[in-house]
Amino acid sequence: MYIKSMDRDVPALWMEDGGVVMIDQRLLPGRTEFYRAKNARETADAIQDMVVRGAPAIGAAGALGMAQGWLGDGGLEETASVLGGSRPTARDLFTAIELMSAVWAGGGDVASAALDYVAEVVDACRRIGEHGAPLIRDGCRVLTHCNAGALATVDWGTALAPMRVAHREGRHFSVWVDETRPWLQGSRLTAWELYQEGIEHAIIADNAAGHYMHRGEVDLVIVGADRVAANGDFANKIGTYEKAVVARENGIPFYVAVPETTFDRRMPSGKDIHIEERGPEEVLCFGGVGVANAGSEARNPVFDVTPARYVTGYITERGIVKFP
Amino acid sequence: MYIKSMDRDVPALWMEDGGVVMIDQRLLPGRTEFYRAKNARETADAIQDMVVRGAPAIGAAGALGMAQGWLGDGGLEETASVLGGSRPTARDLFTAIELMSAVWAGGGDVASAALDYVAEVVDACRRIGEHGAPLIRDGCRVLTHCNAGALATVDWGTALAPMRVAHREGRHFSVWVDETRPWLQGSRLTAWELYQEGIEHAIIADNAAGHYMHRGEVDLVIVGADRVAANGDFANKIGTYEKAVVARENGIPFYVAVPETTFDRRMPSGKDIHIEERGPEEVLCFGGVGVANAGSEARNPVFDVTPARYVTGYITERGIVKFP
Repeated sequence: MYIKSMDRDVPALWMEDGGVVMIDQRLLPGRTEFYRAKNARETADAIQDMVVRGAPAIGAAGALGMAQGWLGDGGLEETASVLGGSRPTARDLFTAIELMSAVWAGGGDVASAALDYVAEVVDACRRIGEHGAPLIRDGCRVLTHCNAGALATVDWGTALAPMRVAHREGRHFSVWVDETRPWLQGSRLTAWELYQEGIEHAIIADNAAGHYMHRGEVDLVIVGADRVAANGDFANKIGTYEKAVVARENGIPFYVAVPETTFDRRMPSGKDIHIEERGPEEVLCFGGVGVANAGSEARNPVFDVTPARYVTGYITERGIVKFP
Repeated sequence: MYIKSMDRDVPALWMEDGGVVMIDQRLLPGRTEFYRAKNARETADAIQDMVVRGAPAIGAAGALGMAQGWLGDGGLEETASVLGGSRPTARDLFTAIELMSAVWAGGGDVASAALDYVAEVVDACRRIGEHGAPLIRDGCRVLTHCNAGALATVDWGTALAPMRVAHREGRHFSVWVDETRPWLQGSRLTAWELYQEGIEHAIIADNAAGHYMHRGEVDLVIVGADRVAANGDFANKIGTYEKAVVARENGIPFYVAVPETTFDRRMPSGKDIHIEERGPEEVLCFGGVGVANAGSEARNPVFDVTPARYVTGYITERGIVKFP
């Protein structure tokens, strides 16, 4: 991703002199600083402390952490255990650890395998961008929800990849950025990425997305996904379902940008997807300060499931897929 | 409305010893304090500074402010001008000022007319509550958006009136409270009112409303309205349109609670309703602190228009009305 203050392209994380260097996402959008994890233990801590977030990016950090253990004096099981204990949910982390463990156990070059793993993640996203970019024509007004950007995927992003490619191809378009309560991934991270790239955008309260769709000011919706079931139902950040329903009601194409690894063929439908619920303080507080009535409860489901019938197409690294 | 710390019913504002006493809504939900405006000028300042908000409540404050001018040494035109200059949008304010001016000019008792005006506002809301309460059965899970409560209408509220009546009739139900970005009228004011009354409720990010509707955990939606056009289209707080679309998609009854004065028969359809857009800082900042990417723009439409076809019925003081 392009970063203005550095005037060059930078991935969300990379390996350098045996260290894993990461954009510290805890400090965005206020400050652009890099965090350096010297060994596998520090990389695990960085994942746990959310220096890096987003399932594909966490997987990449896990692969590089395994390489750090292999290059240093860590044992295979110890390194895998330390990294695997950092965060429980992101499937990509365990996929990466398992792949690297197999290379390590087989006597292979884990450092080289880890770099290949990261390169494949980035390449899949770049191809998602190339397949999706033709959807974004000059003058197009795209809406996105949450952050499915380079920060979450090492580079390019999923939902943001077609926008990056279309922009670099010289097309002019604008993006409606849902702020994405409660964590504000939209106003904090997606807006930051688009600003760095120089892509025209406006942040809106999530409530305003439907208003602009209804007024004919949205031509296209692109979101990411955390998991796509075998029938095409998908889980993504809370609020995605509402946007999909309102998009279809207004005849607006609704695309899900995902690498093939996000498809979970063993899960028959979205009904089987477990929805994580986090603590109420994310809803009751804003920037650490209580904003709601003090005696009130809150509920905080962080994902929702959107049935496949609302999806126009899935933008993958192999092209745009439609479910029957 | 019932207030726990005082253990009694209190309206949002009333007249006492020539002063207008108001719950200071700027301090809610943190502190419950009362603001006393000694004369018409101070009442106008209180409206301007948003000590009191909500169109019917602003109208009531305007009527009482006219009475203060009449009781004191203010002239008719001066008093009307001072109050009319306090806030530009709420139609009720001008209606109240015009009604009181006519009484004043005709030599009538403005203090008595103002008290009658306030009593009529409260009475309409109470009857909205009585007509709407039978919709809320035992075990019902109601969803509401924004604050259409006693704070906005002197007492009872519009959308909250049926909930107050059902609760006082002894039925047990629960309320999903949309936090209502960007101003958080839901988590700050609606949650405060429901908490005071002892009505079970949970605050949710606006994004989660659709999730709970889709999962069958919402039985009924009740919202207020700022203006209803002759064909039944209505304007209300931004986000109402999304909730209405998703409610219909899931077969959930969607009611609009409004006094007859909110119907604007001269306006043929919702297409003619002007949508106010406020400054971007409400979206970009919270409590004066920037939360979004610093270089990004934001758009902030504060109302949206919902077509009549999404509305199951309008709960008015005369009963439940359906449009063709």
